[in-house]
Amino acid sequence: MARKAPRRTAERILDTSLALFNRYGEPGVSTAQISSELNISPGNLYYHFPAKDVLVNALFDQYVQHLNELLPAAPDVGDVENAWFFLHALFERVWAYRFLYRDINHLLSNNRHLEQSMKNVLLDKTSAFKGMLQGLSHAGVLQLESSDRDDLAVHMVVMLTWWLSYEYVRDPRHAMADEHAQRSVLRGALHVMGLLLPHLDAASREHLRQLRTAYMPSP
Amino acid sequence: MARKAPRRTAERILDTSLALFNRYGEPGVSTAQISSELNISPGNLYYHFPAKDVLVNALFDQYVQHLNELLPAAPDVGDVENAWFFLHALFERVWAYRFLYRDINHLLSNNRHLEQSMKNVLLDKTSAFKGMLQGLSHAGVLQLESSDRDDLAVHMVVMLTWWLSYEYVRDPRHAMADEHAQRSVLRGALHVMGLLLPHLDAASREHLRQLRTAYMPSP
Repeated sequence: MARKAPRRTAERILDTSLALFNRYGEPGVSTAQISSELNISPGNLYYHFPAKDVLVNALFDQYVQHLNELLPAAPDVGDVENAWFFLHALFERVWAYRFLYRDINHLLSNNRHLEQSMKNVLLDKTSAFKGMLQGLSHAGVLQLESSDRDDLAVHMVVMLTWWLSYEYVRDPRHAMADEHAQRSVLRGALHVMGLLLPHLDAASREHLRQLRTAYMPSP
Repeated sequence: MARKAPRRTAERILDTSLALFNRYGEPGVSTAQISSELNISPGNLYYHFPAKDVLVNALFDQYVQHLNELLPAAPDVGDVENAWFFLHALFERVWAYRFLYRDINHLLSNNRHLEQSMKNVLLDKTSAFKGMLQGLSHAGVLQLESSDRDDLAVHMVVMLTWWLSYEYVRDPRHAMADEHAQRSVLRGALHVMGLLLPHLDAASREHLRQLRTAYMPSP
């Protein structure tokens, strides 16, 4: 029987680092801990990623790639149900790379690549939300003046980006643990959707309320 | 001529620490830098504040005290103009202690006092906003079902708490500098007010739009 090729070391390093960063926060994890968790030598880790920042940047680039696969779908969302799925998918990606948000300011102040690129992520998310709101307006689902639409897109971005921080402050010991994934992601997506609520036509508003009743987890 | 009594050392230490933390972020400032900035010996600093956390906690308690002077006014806000002044005053306090928000997750994960108390600040702000929304509803200014009111209060808290982080990610090199105070505070207050916009009666909505035109700074 043919042996399965071992997964490439660089990939294993990235996966393990992501898990540790998400669990303990990036500042709380050293490269020594990463190599020890993987049972590889510090030299081997260093060969693949000569500094922790290089690791962080590689994970950040993965995150951006995942986002870029999703964001172009925003203008075609067209109704409340699709908006809900879109936001849920977006929150799942934010959750998967939640260490980037947990210590965002610390990471920015120590890493030029993130300092440059994180603001582009915000801008890309803002454009995507503007596109989504425009699409919903064209479909007659949403009533909103175009200047208010820009503000609403910004509010959605702030909520998307810092919702997990809100959950973290409310419950620092548990909010970031894997078993809270589903609940945090649902709650975040529903709160971003809630920003749309006052602008929806009656039928879509009712639809969103039903989605909310069906999905909203207990606090 | 009587000599003015020198300001008490502990107070000077707190003021200088606050200024340095706000400018460079708490993780980027050591107690050695604080004593050097004040021209006092590290031993003198240590005598007043035996650890950086003790300093951080004293500043946090000041912040909470400033908040507690303001929040009880929330239920009496009653109209758009007062809501605007209330939010502006709230944002000024957030700005004055912005280091607490810039590295909020880092601070929480290393400091038990903050871990316990920061969530109470969120809850107090949420209650205050609920009271404000209730007051505005009673005054007939706002139309909103009471379940939606609770969600809106949470959205306002997320926006209030992380607006400066949003500004920071957009412009990491300048957003936290003193000369941006007025602009950031105005923009933050206007965006929180923007969350109320769809629920206001027509006259108040027009009033808020006028306030916005009068105060909104260029981006």
